[in-house]
Amino acid sequence: METKRGKTTIEIIKSLEKQRRLSPIERIIATTTGSVTQILEAYLGEEVGIHTIEQRVKEAGEMAEVLGIRKGDKVNYRVVEIRGRGGRVLIKAVSWTPLKRLKNRFKDDLMRADIPIGKILLKHQIESRRELRDVKVEGGRIKRTYDIISDGGVLMRIEEVIYGDDF
Amino acid sequence: METKRGKTTIEIIKSLEKQRRLSPIERIIATTTGSVTQILEAYLGEEVGIHTIEQRVKEAGEMAEVLGIRKGDKVNYRVVEIRGRGGRVLIKAVSWTPLKRLKNRFKDDLMRADIPIGKILLKHQIESRRELRDVKVEGGRIKRTYDIISDGGVLMRIEEVIYGDDF
Repeated sequence: METKRGKTTIEIIKSLEKQRRLSPIERIIATTTGSVTQILEAYLGEEVGIHTIEQRVKEAGEMAEVLGIRKGDKVNYRVVEIRGRGGRVLIKAVSWTPLKRLKNRFKDDLMRADIPIGKILLKHQIESRRELRDVKVEGGRIKRTYDIISDGGVLMRIEEVIYGDDF
Repeated sequence: METKRGKTTIEIIKSLEKQRRLSPIERIIATTTGSVTQILEAYLGEEVGIHTIEQRVKEAGEMAEVLGIRKGDKVNYRVVEIRGRGGRVLIKAVSWTPLKRLKNRFKDDLMRADIPIGKILLKHQIESRRELRDVKVEGGRIKRTYDIISDGGVLMRIEEVIYGDDF
């Protein structure tokens, strides 16, 4: 499938595997444009939890350009860990959400700390698409950058680091 | 994650596993609201192909209600096999697409036989969501029914049977 700026799924995998070999579940998570939480839950056969490390409203700053807003515009900045059974960290994710893109009906859910974005999109029946901006192996770990786009604008920029050494 | 009429990913899996045990990749494919083709390609580490068994324009008939159109309205009816290396059948999918929902810019791609829907949505940057309508085990095989929804209407109703005994 074409994803990262026209790169196909197989091309992304080949590029990553120049660094190190990936397991099948790593290949799936690295290349998906679907919900990572949903894939993790299905793979593990158990619910995963969201643990918030940091969350605050701040000015967009240097992130403004990729979000398509002005530097002084407010964004919701959130750092979370997706954790499996026993608190094991599976994913660490940092996200930036322009406040002015948030409709009231789902603003409250999105500002709450413990709900994964995929669940919010499902609950509020939000039509969107995800665009992979970058996928790489760094320090042995897969790192992904992608945007969730809705109504033609970036609803959320997400940077993920994939942990879980037994994937 | 909540998917099938409010059922979470884990609830769907538990319900399916009353019939038989599922492998991790079966659990992922059974519950995903993302692109099945993309997941298959990542899992197998190889491109998969679409082989068309049947394709024709016909009247919606009894499918009209779920598609939100009239019985006499035209739909594109398509039966395909997703095949892996050596022609092995991985998925058989039947789909119904209301012609009046198709914008010209992607109508040609969607009517072409050999392009998976996920690739078309990516190429044309179509914002959508997928809603699982039914997932069950029948004759030992997982069967899924889901809708791809865009601009508030059903763009495509899809019924899938998952093959591939070594998943």
